[in-house]
Amino acid sequence: MSAPDLADLIENLRRFADDRDWGRFHTPKNLAMALTGEVGELVAELQWLTPRESAAVMDDPEAGARVRAEIGDVMIYLTRLADVLGVDLIQAAQEKLADAALRYPAP
Amino acid sequence: MSAPDLADLIENLRRFADDRDWGRFHTPKNLAMALTGEVGELVAELQWLTPRESAAVMDDPEAGARVRAEIGDVMIYLTRLADVLGVDLIQAAQEKLADAALRYPAP
Amino acid sequence: MSAPDLADLIENLRRFADDRDWGRFHTPKNLAMALTGEVGELVAELQWLTPRESAAVMDDPEAGARVRAEIGDVMIYLTRLADVLGVDLIQAAQEKLADAALRYPAP
Amino acid sequence: MSAPDLADLIENLRRFADDRDWGRFHTPKNLAMALTGEVGELVAELQWLTPRESAAVMDDPEAGARVRAEIGDVMIYLTRLADVLGVDLIQAAQEKLADAALRYPAP
Repeated sequence: MSAPDLADLIENLRRFADDRDWGRFHTPKNLAMALTGEVGELVAELQWLTPRESAAVMDDPEAGARVRAEIGDVMIYLTRLADVLGVDLIQAAQEKLADAALRYPAP
Repeated sequence: MSAPDLADLIENLRRFADDRDWGRFHTPKNLAMALTGEVGELVAELQWLTPRESAAVMDDPEAGARVRAEIGDVMIYLTRLADVLGVDLIQAAQEKLADAALRYPAP
Repeated sequence: MSAPDLADLIENLRRFADDRDWGRFHTPKNLAMALTGEVGELVAELQWLTPRESAAVMDDPEAGARVRAEIGDVMIYLTRLADVLGVDLIQAAQEKLADAALRYPAP
Repeated sequence: MSAPDLADLIENLRRFADDRDWGRFHTPKNLAMALTGEVGELVAELQWLTPRESAAVMDDPEAGARVRAEIGDVMIYLTRLADVLGVDLIQAAQEKLADAALRYPAP
């Protein structure tokens, strides 16, 4: 498979932390805070836009690049947090989606 | 491949939204807010734990199930947000990780 | 002065924590996480509303009561965090507002 | 009274927004997002610290100044949000504290 996949990302994040001896900082508590900080930066990119403007944000190359970068940062910390907790990110999401489908049946 | 992968999750989230006609609520602005709410719930699970306790949170079946569920919810909204913006979640993360590797060279 | 003021709130929060021996949990790190959780709940109340609907949210008695309660929770943790750090909440805000006035001069 | 109080801050924030014609951006939805962004910056200041280190963060003049500034920013948006919603910040907090005292009686 050519595209980088989630297993690669998990592995790259592990190596990145190990190479810098940052594993000791990567407690779930600290990573959840880092995730908060990155979500805050992502939200800040959209805060003054109308919903309609937010839907077109990728049409602006500069704003689009910033949004993309912030999404990347959020994904980094979410992936790392799930990894240190031993949670399968995709499976956890699929399970919650299945729950939601029961709670909100399609018409 | 047998395990559910990210492409499946993206597709399931699209169908879930379409089946309920919720696409009109799923602006990037609204989804970023929903992501914030879910991150807040995840953080709340860890807020009174010491870093050491947080590292062992999955050993407690009840707390562990809650943390796993919150991670699932965060992943749902992050995946959906990236999808409506046309951002490849894994690629965006890999790019930011490559940036970080340049900014913080391994010793 | 008859209205409850900020000094009273600070004092009540101190006593509340002391009476329950919760001071040891109230590190800045933990309180910042608790603040995050409460902001997440506040944001969740507004996430699917249009900006216009959000401006009228207090007209709905039930939604209005929830929003008011979440604002109260956010204020509790922000006040407590500032107190344990020895930061004067109003003065810190006034200083940042003065900075903003320099950065964004009025036309 | 010599110290700047909350009523002054509310008034200064109103004038600041009016002078720049920013009132139209200050919907509750947008302000809640701005609050999220500022809380994210505050959390980021504390994310890699141990709880003990976080308790001493004000001893470091540079980190302390950053934390104080972020608290100021959070207070700005919380105060402005409460004002546009017509919510009395202190009263809302006192009410929630009274609720908490009932739910968690002192021993």
